[in-house]
Amino acid sequence: MTGAEPSLRERRRAETTTAVARAALDLALADGWDAVTVDDVAARAGISRRTFFNYFATKDEALFHNALPWRPEVLEEFQRSTGPLLDGLEALFTAQAEQEAPDRDRALQVMGLVDAAPELLPGLLARIAASEAVLAEAVRAREGVDEFTAQAIAAVAGALARVGGMSWLSGLQPDPLTSTRAAWAVLRALTTTPGSDR
Amino acid sequence: MTGAEPSLRERRRAETTTAVARAALDLALADGWDAVTVDDVAARAGISRRTFFNYFATKDEALFHNALPWRPEVLEEFQRSTGPLLDGLEALFTAQAEQEAPDRDRALQVMGLVDAAPELLPGLLARIAASEAVLAEAVRAREGVDEFTAQAIAAVAGALARVGGMSWLSGLQPDPLTSTRAAWAVLRALTTTPGSDR
Repeated sequence: MTGAEPSLRERRRAETTTAVARAALDLALADGWDAVTVDDVAARAGISRRTFFNYFATKDEALFHNALPWRPEVLEEFQRSTGPLLDGLEALFTAQAEQEAPDRDRALQVMGLVDAAPELLPGLLARIAASEAVLAEAVRAREGVDEFTAQAIAAVAGALARVGGMSWLSGLQPDPLTSTRAAWAVLRALTTTPGSDR
Repeated sequence: MTGAEPSLRERRRAETTTAVARAALDLALADGWDAVTVDDVAARAGISRRTFFNYFATKDEALFHNALPWRPEVLEEFQRSTGPLLDGLEALFTAQAEQEAPDRDRALQVMGLVDAAPELLPGLLARIAASEAVLAEAVRAREGVDEFTAQAIAAVAGALARVGGMSWLSGLQPDPLTSTRAAWAVLRALTTTPGSDR
């Protein structure tokens, strides 16, 4: 895993899906998701309707495509690392949080969007599950553990990310990096209490 | 916290809400949630429409009232216990799993119901959040930790419960008790790897 450069084709594909996801979110925030059509999203992203359907089956799929994406270089670094798993996971989530260039207002707007249009929830939950599955697969590959173990570890990490993220969004923590570190510190304290391992 | 007996009034109230939640679920499984009215639920539970609204504001609220309930005696035992938090939490989730008299077919039917009627998701997610908040409050009271710490611990425990539950429902584990133990064993292994604490 020395991180071969993605091909031009792969890079263009990634650029297009990112642009489409961004266009979908912008339109949803401006007009409400009900009022947005696939044609609107395609037009704003500068592609044809036909091209849109080469990338996504539905407008909901486009909206959440960029939700919770793993940065490839950050995920690769995790898989290459060889220290204790807990350290590797914390480094992974810390690097994600650092590189996010967090836009708190936008994140809050997205939350408001889903609150106002709960029919978006299944799509968002599917993205969260997909993101957790990618992490579980990375854990399984790095550690050689079984699928259940990998899923449980990914779920625990996801829970910490969620609580950390909400703490930042609610204003309790100044930025995603601080909240990520605080969440992982809780896990370490929970499990290193004297006598807590049997 | 020596567990004072609930009053007759409290017991009757709990019996009624349980009966209503059960009636709502039975009707939803039989007819589809769309077709079920508040009147149907009230009739099946043997109460008047007016009494229904003394307990619940909507039919969705009734449906999920009994989802993920903490058994009072199990929660009290957790709060009374004084050992390491991790042991206390595992004992809490183990006792819940043991006392559940698990009905796998019914649990799978409920999952199918939510799949078929995704408009139920917000209500279900609200119940999950409420259940996690109850646990966080119990952790905060037992340990004297701050709210963020308690929330992170409750979220981690909830993640383990979810992965364990899915593993049982998908047939990988024979019963909720085995899957609960397996999930907690993953957390202990994750955090007791030599060198994983800094």
